[in-house]
Amino acid sequence: MLRLLVAAVVIVLAPAAHAADAQQMEANKKAVVEFYDLAINQKNFEAAAKFIGPRYVQHNPRAADGPEGLKAFLAFLRDKFPDYHSDIKRVFADGDYVILHVHNVPTPGSRGNAIVDIFKLENGKIAEHWDVRQEIPEQSANSNTMF
Amino acid sequence: MLRLLVAAVVIVLAPAAHAADAQQMEANKKAVVEFYDLAINQKNFEAAAKFIGPRYVQHNPRAADGPEGLKAFLAFLRDKFPDYHSDIKRVFADGDYVILHVHNVPTPGSRGNAIVDIFKLENGKIAEHWDVRQEIPEQSANSNTMF
Repeated sequence: MLRLLVAAVVIVLAPAAHAADAQQMEANKKAVVEFYDLAINQKNFEAAAKFIGPRYVQHNPRAADGPEGLKAFLAFLRDKFPDYHSDIKRVFADGDYVILHVHNVPTPGSRGNAIVDIFKLENGKIAEHWDVRQEIPEQSANSNTMF
Repeated sequence: MLRLLVAAVVIVLAPAAHAADAQQMEANKKAVVEFYDLAINQKNFEAAAKFIGPRYVQHNPRAADGPEGLKAFLAFLRDKFPDYHSDIKRVFADGDYVILHVHNVPTPGSRGNAIVDIFKLENGKIAEHWDVRQEIPEQSANSNTMF
């Protein structure tokens, strides 16, 4: 009986790591979605900054590196594109990464862009960012939209 | 003691679903990576087709819907861009989705494009595809590259 119990406990321990991972990934998704709205839609660097860790490595070629680069980029958006808005269509998480599929509309009424943002988190804070951005074309070879 | 064992077994059963999910997600990643190489790099529709399910919903605005649309797109690549090549930089999976972050080089020596591809799988077969594609600019505001 004791041997059976020990076996059961060993089986419990392995998937416990999965459960902890799943919980952390859900927390990461929540943090990134909140950060994204504060940064991109509200353009409020001060409020968004609490989700950023001690380092913020930027791969978007339009933005300078680090938290200061993000601050300057949001100031640029607020100044030049005050209505710049992104709707999150899908949220994924895998390990330390959160991926967003978004519809970005820089100016009201424009077709806008399809964007995928990739965030890497360290200890629940955003540490690195990549994105890819494509203008939605007027014509498409299919009728399924880019989303 | 029996009560303790029953409790342990109940705890085991819940994460078992997670383990099955994790196994399916790893299988999905493997299928998509193999499909991607056969389709995009080898441009071999017949070999790639075994990874596609009964439906293949296309969201890339340059490709027609369905498996036939993919077949025509790969024929176009083979004809116009025979050296078109994509290197997978990152692979993510979440639920039924697999996401690839890739460096695409249409012609040898060109800077190429950053692309994110999103695939949805049904019963282990690819059923839907989205992507976002951006030309890598000559100049960047940071030195971290787009990858």
